[in-house]
Amino acid sequence: MNINKFVTPEIIFGGHAIRQAGDACVRLGAKKVLIVSDRGVANAGWLEKVMELCKESHLPFATFVGVTTDPKDREVEQGCQVFVQHECDAIIGVGGGSVLDVAKAIAILATNGGAISDYEGIDKIKKPLPPMIMIMTTAGSGSEVSQFSIIVDSNRKKKMTIVSKTLVPDIAIIDPYTLVTKDSSLTATTGMDVLTHAIEAYVSIAATPLTDVQAKNALILCAQYLRPSVASKTNTEAKEAMAMASLQAGLAFSNAILGAAHAISHAIGGKFPLPHGEINAILLPYVMDFNFIATPKRFLDIATCLGIDTRGLTEREAGNAAIHFVKELSFDIGIPTRFREVGITQEMIHHISEVALEDACMITNPRDMNVEQVKQVLKNVL
Amino acid sequence: MNINKFVTPEIIFGGHAIRQAGDACVRLGAKKVLIVSDRGVANAGWLEKVMELCKESHLPFATFVGVTTDPKDREVEQGCQVFVQHECDAIIGVGGGSVLDVAKAIAILATNGGAISDYEGIDKIKKPLPPMIMIMTTAGSGSEVSQFSIIVDSNRKKKMTIVSKTLVPDIAIIDPYTLVTKDSSLTATTGMDVLTHAIEAYVSIAATPLTDVQAKNALILCAQYLRPSVASKTNTEAKEAMAMASLQAGLAFSNAILGAAHAISHAIGGKFPLPHGEINAILLPYVMDFNFIATPKRFLDIATCLGIDTRGLTEREAGNAAIHFVKELSFDIGIPTRFREVGITQEMIHHISEVALEDACMITNPRDMNVEQVKQVLKNVL
Repeated sequence: MNINKFVTPEIIFGGHAIRQAGDACVRLGAKKVLIVSDRGVANAGWLEKVMELCKESHLPFATFVGVTTDPKDREVEQGCQVFVQHECDAIIGVGGGSVLDVAKAIAILATNGGAISDYEGIDKIKKPLPPMIMIMTTAGSGSEVSQFSIIVDSNRKKKMTIVSKTLVPDIAIIDPYTLVTKDSSLTATTGMDVLTHAIEAYVSIAATPLTDVQAKNALILCAQYLRPSVASKTNTEAKEAMAMASLQAGLAFSNAILGAAHAISHAIGGKFPLPHGEINAILLPYVMDFNFIATPKRFLDIATCLGIDTRGLTEREAGNAAIHFVKELSFDIGIPTRFREVGITQEMIHHISEVALEDACMITNPRDMNVEQVKQVLKNVL
Repeated sequence: MNINKFVTPEIIFGGHAIRQAGDACVRLGAKKVLIVSDRGVANAGWLEKVMELCKESHLPFATFVGVTTDPKDREVEQGCQVFVQHECDAIIGVGGGSVLDVAKAIAILATNGGAISDYEGIDKIKKPLPPMIMIMTTAGSGSEVSQFSIIVDSNRKKKMTIVSKTLVPDIAIIDPYTLVTKDSSLTATTGMDVLTHAIEAYVSIAATPLTDVQAKNALILCAQYLRPSVASKTNTEAKEAMAMASLQAGLAFSNAILGAAHAISHAIGGKFPLPHGEINAILLPYVMDFNFIATPKRFLDIATCLGIDTRGLTEREAGNAAIHFVKELSFDIGIPTRFREVGITQEMIHHISEVALEDACMITNPRDMNVEQVKQVLKNVL
C-alpha cells in the first residue's frame, strides 16, 4: 500500500458564489490584490464584477489582463511586474484555464524569482506563494483546484507542465452563472477537457479511492450534460452540472495526475494554436485504446459511468463501447476527429512524440510508452 | 442553487504514513510541538513512535496523555496548560476521536483563550489556530479531517458540539497499520460510527455532489469490510478498507454535517459512559425510519450502496431493506440493539430529547423534528 496525498483548496461553489471574492481575499489577510484576467472575460463583465467586489470589501487592487490562449512565459513576466510595481500581496485569477495558470505562475515569480522555466517539472517551487483565489469561468481546466500550471516556453515553443502542491490555490470559487457567457465552441472544447481529465485520472497509476469517486461522478455528469450544455447558453441545469463535473474532475486529476493524452496534447499545444480541449478530444479515444490493456476493469467502469449498459459485455467490449461513446460525443458537439483536419502532418510526428515523452503527465499513464508507441498513436489519429 | 463550501486538510494516507509526522510538522513551521494522546494509544506504542519521529526531525516536543473517552472540558484546560508552559506552537494529536477532539480544543484555547464552552455551536472561533496535525488510529470519528470537536461540559453533563472551518486540521495522517492494535469491540463501535457518518451525511440537507460521492463509497466499504475487520485484527485488507471508509465518511460529514442520530447520541453520551459508536448504532435504524419520508430516493441509493439488489423494489421497500441491513450488521458484530440493554429508562427520555434538539447536528437533519418526535424515536428504541 503506497502513501498517497490528497490536497484541495477551500472550495466555494454555487450560484452567485463569485460575490464572496472580495471578502474571501480579505479573510486571507490581503492588503492589495492583483486581479489577473483576459480580454474575453473582461468583455463578459466578470473582471469589472470582481473589481466592484474588491471595492465593496475596501481592498485596493491592480489589474493585469494581458493573458492570451496558451499563455506565454512573457505574459507571466509582465504580470509579475505589475504585481511588484503595485506592491500587491495576493492574487485573484478570474477566467478560464489560461488566466488561472498565469495567475499561479505570477505567484511563483513574485516570491521565488527567476524565470518561469526554472520551475518546469515536479516540486521545483521552494518558497511559499502569496494567497491565491481562483474564480473559474469556463468549467474546463480544473486549474482552480489543481496543483498544475501550464505555460508556453516561447523560445522552445513548448508547453511547460509545472506541478507542485503549493500551486493549489487557497480558495477556489466556482459560480455556474459565469458559464452562461461562454459560446458553444468554448463549451464544447472545455467540456471535452473535463472528460479527458476524468478518464485520465481514473486510469492513472496514482488514482486512489478519494480521486476515483470524484472522477466517476464527473464522467456521469459529462455523459448526461455536455451535449445540452453546448446546445444552449441558458440551460442552467446543464451549466451547474458541467461546473460540478469540471470541479470533480479537477479534484481527481490534481491528486491522481493525468496521462498520455495530456502529455501529447501539451507537446502539440506548444506548436499549434489549437484549443487544448480540442486536441485532448481528438487524442482521447486513441489513447484509451492504447491504454486499455493496462487496466481493463477500469475501462469497463468508465463505460458504466458513461451510461453504457455493460451487463453481459466483456471488458474489451465495454472498453470499445466507451471509446465509441467518446468519439460520438465529440462528433455531436462539433469537434474535429482527425489531426489532419487541423493541420498536423506526418513530418511533425517524431518531434511531437519526443517532446510528449518528457512531459510530467506521462509518468502516471497506466501503460508504459516509448517513442514508437507515441508515434503510432499519432499516426492512428492523423 | 445554494452556495456550499468544501474544506479538507492535506491528507496523507497509506501504510506507514505515520512516519511523515515529524517532517510534516516541521514543514508547517513548528518550533516546539505538543503531542496529545491517551493511555491506550501510548500502551499500543504509537505515542512513542511519534516522539521518536519528532526527535528524528529535530523537533522539540511536550506531551499530554490525559485524554479519556468522552473527553471533558477540564482535560482540555489541563492540556492547554502544558501547551503554554512548554511554549509550544503546534499540536500533533495521535489517537481516536476523543484524543483528536481534545487536541483541537486545546488549539482553540491556546490562541483564543476563555473556556471551551464559549465556543459551543457554529463558527464561534475568532482567532487563527496553531498548526495541527492529526494522526488517526481508530477509523471512526473522522475528526482528523472534520471541522468538529465534541467535548463534554462537566457541569451540564452535556456533549458540546463545536463546529468551525478553522478546526479542520492542517494535515491528516491516516495509516491503516495503526488499526491492527484495536480490539474487536472498539473496531465494531467505531465502524458503526463510520456507517452513521456516511448515512447522515448522505441524507443531510447540506449534502453536495462532492460529499455524496465520498459518503457512498464509505457505505460500500462498510458493507463489505466492517464484519471481516471486526473478525480479525490482522486482516490488513479489511483495515485498509475501513481506514478509507472512515476518511471518506469524514470528508462527507465534515462538509455536509450530520443529523438526528448524532444530535441524540451527543445528548445521551454526555450522561452515559457508552461508546459513541454504540449509541449511534442503536439509534441509526430508528432515525433512518423517521427520516425516510424526507428523501425516499436517497434511502434507495443507500440500500444500493449497502449491496442490496434494489431492482424492482419501491423506494419504501428499499429503505426498509437498508434499515434491516443496518440492524443485522450491528447484531453480527455484537452491538446491543436496544437502549434498555444499556441502562437508559423511560424517565430519562424527555430530558434527553430536549438536549438533543439544541445540538448543532439537528440543523441539517432532513426531516424537521419536535420534542415529541425525538421522544417517539427514543421510545421505539428503548
